[in-house]
Amino acid sequence: MPPDPTRDLETLAVNTIKMLAVDAVEQAKSGHPGMPMGAADYAFELWLRHLRFDPKAPDWPDRDRFVLSAGHGSMLLYALLHLSGYDLSLEDLKAFRQWDSRTPGHPEHGCAPGVETTTGPLGQGVGNAVGMAIAARLAAERFNTPAHRIVGHRVWAIVSDGDLMEGVGSEAASIAGHLRLGNLAYIYDDNRITIEGSTDLAFSEDVGRRFEAYGFFVQRIDGHDHTQIRTALAAAAAEETRPSLVIARTHIGQGSPNRHDSAKAHGEPLGPAEAAATKAALGWPAQPAFLVPDEVRSLFAVRAAEGRRAHDEWRGRFEAWSAADPERRAAWDRYHERAVPADLFQKLLAAVGGEEKPAATRVSSGLVLQKAAELVPSLCGGSADLEPSTKTAIKGSPSIAPGAFAGRNFHFGVREHGMGAVLNGLALAGGPIPYGATFLIFSDYMRPPIRLAAMTGLQVIYVFTHDSVFLGEDGPTHQPIEQVMSLRLVPNLVVIRPADARETAAAWTVALQRRGGPTALVLSRQDLPPLKRPDGFRPETMLRGGYILSEAGPGRRAPVILIATGSEVAPAVEAQGILAGQGVGSRVVSMPSLELFMQQPEADRRAVVPPDAPTVVIEAGRTHGWERVAGIDALMIGLDRFGASAPYKVLAEKFGFTGPQIADRVRRWLGDS
Amino acid sequence: MPPDPTRDLETLAVNTIKMLAVDAVEQAKSGHPGMPMGAADYAFELWLRHLRFDPKAPDWPDRDRFVLSAGHGSMLLYALLHLSGYDLSLEDLKAFRQWDSRTPGHPEHGCAPGVETTTGPLGQGVGNAVGMAIAARLAAERFNTPAHRIVGHRVWAIVSDGDLMEGVGSEAASIAGHLRLGNLAYIYDDNRITIEGSTDLAFSEDVGRRFEAYGFFVQRIDGHDHTQIRTALAAAAAEETRPSLVIARTHIGQGSPNRHDSAKAHGEPLGPAEAAATKAALGWPAQPAFLVPDEVRSLFAVRAAEGRRAHDEWRGRFEAWSAADPERRAAWDRYHERAVPADLFQKLLAAVGGEEKPAATRVSSGLVLQKAAELVPSLCGGSADLEPSTKTAIKGSPSIAPGAFAGRNFHFGVREHGMGAVLNGLALAGGPIPYGATFLIFSDYMRPPIRLAAMTGLQVIYVFTHDSVFLGEDGPTHQPIEQVMSLRLVPNLVVIRPADARETAAAWTVALQRRGGPTALVLSRQDLPPLKRPDGFRPETMLRGGYILSEAGPGRRAPVILIATGSEVAPAVEAQGILAGQGVGSRVVSMPSLELFMQQPEADRRAVVPPDAPTVVIEAGRTHGWERVAGIDALMIGLDRFGASAPYKVLAEKFGFTGPQIADRVRRWLGDS
Repeated sequence: MPPDPTRDLETLAVNTIKMLAVDAVEQAKSGHPGMPMGAADYAFELWLRHLRFDPKAPDWPDRDRFVLSAGHGSMLLYALLHLSGYDLSLEDLKAFRQWDSRTPGHPEHGCAPGVETTTGPLGQGVGNAVGMAIAARLAAERFNTPAHRIVGHRVWAIVSDGDLMEGVGSEAASIAGHLRLGNLAYIYDDNRITIEGSTDLAFSEDVGRRFEAYGFFVQRIDGHDHTQIRTALAAAAAEETRPSLVIARTHIGQGSPNRHDSAKAHGEPLGPAEAAATKAALGWPAQPAFLVPDEVRSLFAVRAAEGRRAHDEWRGRFEAWSAADPERRAAWDRYHERAVPADLFQKLLAAVGGEEKPAATRVSSGLVLQKAAELVPSLCGGSADLEPSTKTAIKGSPSIAPGAFAGRNFHFGVREHGMGAVLNGLALAGGPIPYGATFLIFSDYMRPPIRLAAMTGLQVIYVFTHDSVFLGEDGPTHQPIEQVMSLRLVPNLVVIRPADARETAAAWTVALQRRGGPTALVLSRQDLPPLKRPDGFRPETMLRGGYILSEAGPGRRAPVILIATGSEVAPAVEAQGILAGQGVGSRVVSMPSLELFMQQPEADRRAVVPPDAPTVVIEAGRTHGWERVAGIDALMIGLDRFGASAPYKVLAEKFGFTGPQIADRVRRWLGDS
Repeated sequence: MPPDPTRDLETLAVNTIKMLAVDAVEQAKSGHPGMPMGAADYAFELWLRHLRFDPKAPDWPDRDRFVLSAGHGSMLLYALLHLSGYDLSLEDLKAFRQWDSRTPGHPEHGCAPGVETTTGPLGQGVGNAVGMAIAARLAAERFNTPAHRIVGHRVWAIVSDGDLMEGVGSEAASIAGHLRLGNLAYIYDDNRITIEGSTDLAFSEDVGRRFEAYGFFVQRIDGHDHTQIRTALAAAAAEETRPSLVIARTHIGQGSPNRHDSAKAHGEPLGPAEAAATKAALGWPAQPAFLVPDEVRSLFAVRAAEGRRAHDEWRGRFEAWSAADPERRAAWDRYHERAVPADLFQKLLAAVGGEEKPAATRVSSGLVLQKAAELVPSLCGGSADLEPSTKTAIKGSPSIAPGAFAGRNFHFGVREHGMGAVLNGLALAGGPIPYGATFLIFSDYMRPPIRLAAMTGLQVIYVFTHDSVFLGEDGPTHQPIEQVMSLRLVPNLVVIRPADARETAAAWTVALQRRGGPTALVLSRQDLPPLKRPDGFRPETMLRGGYILSEAGPGRRAPVILIATGSEVAPAVEAQGILAGQGVGSRVVSMPSLELFMQQPEADRRAVVPPDAPTVVIEAGRTHGWERVAGIDALMIGLDRFGASAPYKVLAEKFGFTGPQIADRVRRWLGDS
């Protein structure tokens, strides 16, 4: 017997969520109806009884965060946002998955208020939620006082079997358990259905036991039983010392007579007939589509009003706290503005100014970081268990540890992918400018969150050291070849490979000033000599991505342009000297960032790299792609093969990257051309 | 009191392993001594009592596989190989980490016999071992008979905390537990030390409990107590229905008075003083370095002789089996040779020959796969839970499942990274030509194993569907932009993006014939029209990577070259027609593989893309890198931004990829130039 919708307002509300999802997917003729239908019961309970939000103030700093890691269920989120009174209209819902709509196929941060993160690539939301929960702990530790608790929000996330199969989800959950993030709760939508069929096909592990092993508080419930849901969510909210996993056994496509528990419900519309059958089965009017009963609107309006009151109450506390401790309030503002001083570059330059000895850029970066941390309170981060090598500890600041969030140094463990997803969560939470460090080769382990940071426009900084074959003996498994160029291909990611300490200071300056997207710093393991710059050199020039480091002396012919990056700049300068002795004039262009250089006006670029000049590119990696700057006829001195295990000076010789070898190749090439 | 080496031969042997590692690292002045020192006890027990191998026949198909996932402990492996009698001399050990040596910093498959896989990037070996264990099950199921058991080997792997923190390790372990791989055993070197310090910093989970959740048989032992080690390894070897995890509590740098249990022991030499102190503490002669006592040589020689006998005995069984069942033996040979028929291309073409209707290349690929599976018994694979979309099931063959290995269809779950590592293990094991499928965007989740397949020269096939923004409504999180070009940057990976069914058959042909490295097939979600080719067109032309699909008709000026790939070829042909109507002659070049094209002789390339002709590249992704083929002055019609959620025909229009839009842009560009 179908339930009587007039009898039970909550059933009516749950069915409204389900039917909005069904109708939107039908209208788009594409999408994922099954997950929202299966999740509507617990999502309703979460939003109506636990999630703390003010739909008119989606940026309230102490709001609870809601993460739909199973981003394919986007209509669940859009329906809840609409019903809850966020600025997302029924018209927006009707434009689901259409060009320029606010309701794209997967939730995109920024497309609508209340969408806290961009999800869809599975497992990422698991990590984003960890970052947000850590950020809440950081803020609580920094700003709460015995008299005033102004940070106390929680993070709730819905995760699917796919999120929990992905390794990034495992890494992030292990971090959460380690840090005892009691302010984090996942609801696992355990519908036992994957795209290929039953989870029995590939996923027979005991998920609850696994999460207990991570240190989670695990509960198992019937995800359609509202009493069980309420009890479990209340227990999760009450738990302060362990993150929670609520395993909610659900049925995908719940309510649909023929797609219930079916893999087909996952990723395709029910179709008109089944949509109609579903409405009939639920006692829902066949027409109109996108129906929201008035009493359901009222129910959500009551919840919105509660949220508004909670926000008002918080604002009162916040003002009292501000008045009691204006200094702390000023710190709050700086932190949340991610403020950077106007003279940042000068100060970072000064931090390395006295360095006239050869130094690895990873070491220079470590020096710069100390000053940057002093100047930018938002800066915090860590390494995927390589800090002694990446030089990324903020000295004098304690480690982030279970129950200890006063510091700024993270230990992510050997979990690059989880680190990347956590960094995104930290950036999304508001406050932190997070950085994460590892060897450049292991950027391959974390490409998905790097891409999402770029897509979402998050200020995240990657410190990638050991940036070429010149890391030496660790050999080809650890030696980047294609990594630098392939990171350059990610839209809205800026990659910078500095050549010495000063360029490293410039690189950090760009990264700290660049609010609309991530920056990757690509740093050497080996020592690099400080470069000599011309008299009157303006340091700001280094911020342009590419500049004339050393002009050609007089020569018999038009100078050849030697473009180099990072550790290849110094041998290029050496080659310039040798060539000059042979009557060949050359200009050395240091080009730490191809992307920044390409953003310069064309005339400026031509002044640095004249289009008709013979041009050489020197970079110890794939040069495929440098044609865009240097032209198709350029001599490319790079590496199109994997590296080798040997001391780095041997490798430089074997691979032809010493100054004399470069000079020789250039001279022969000029002779041939 | 230091132990008396003369009293205890086994202690002497263990100390030999330790000291070879210490001496080699000292000599190289770089490397990782701590892990081999801590692992020597159980590694000795494993190699001397359990691992079944014949050092003179490292390719014995039924040998046990040994995987050192913690590849930084390479000297442990090299020491064991040397002592066991493999072709790896003391001179080789003395050349540790030197140019062109057989003992690189991390083990590289092929550098020395007995190195079963290339490791170093953490977590990969965990997955390789799963692939090898599955391959053993596949072979046992295919070739063992009630009368003859010719496949019965096991896979043993040593893993570190880093391997177990990495998500790829979690994914692979979950697969192993699901498939109940009783022939797989990991020894977890639980030394509680990471590079940053104690594992307490970031890794406090209960690893044993987690592996029990995956379905493992978990044992916990003192990793220096030989009695406990023997008992545990014997129990692991006896367990047939669950994979094993032996958690061996060890001490990094064991034997070193001052680096014992120290993070410093991990990645740097002990130094001469501490090396000397260690030798003194172990009662080991200060000189000579690289000492191998005769009695230790004899001990290992006894083991080698046992291995030789086991191999001889196996050979006898194998011959008896061959005689009893010559047909099965012939199948064995075909399987292990990864044989492909000479007329493969013709037959795969015929499989799609009748297709004159528009079809997505993923669908054409599905058709080709059926024929390929019929012709190539080695071919097996599956998808990361996207088979209904990737069209990668071999019809009529059962699924690989717990206790069921007769089939060829894998269900990897939503575990792209684990899939990639398992594919490498399958390829390394000998026999399978494995393929793995997912959406192209999720190639980002599995770049490390793709790179390792390329480095190791493994024949692995990736089927990446949903290859551009034209997947439509799922939006930018799912739409590849930089993926195609960035995969092209991986050395020794061939990327092929076919334009229709026939090119898809050619792509599979390349992949199946290409034994020395991996191939990525990049396929459309949406239908593509079959392309019309000129009369007398030789299909082999399609194997060259780029070819003239449609020659220019007569025109007023030199023809413009339109280079396109995949789904952009058909609109290029449409544009050609429009341009012809406007008196602009153009040639359409289909270039499914930039890499294959670049391998053609220069004259042939120039015949297809004349260097001086105006050239246009049309590819719905990052075009950065196409300059190498098309020149710096080419018109690039691509996408340098993230995509958008909308129906794909809308996206084609909005992003300017329709035939008329392309024609219009080309005409305007020609007018301007």
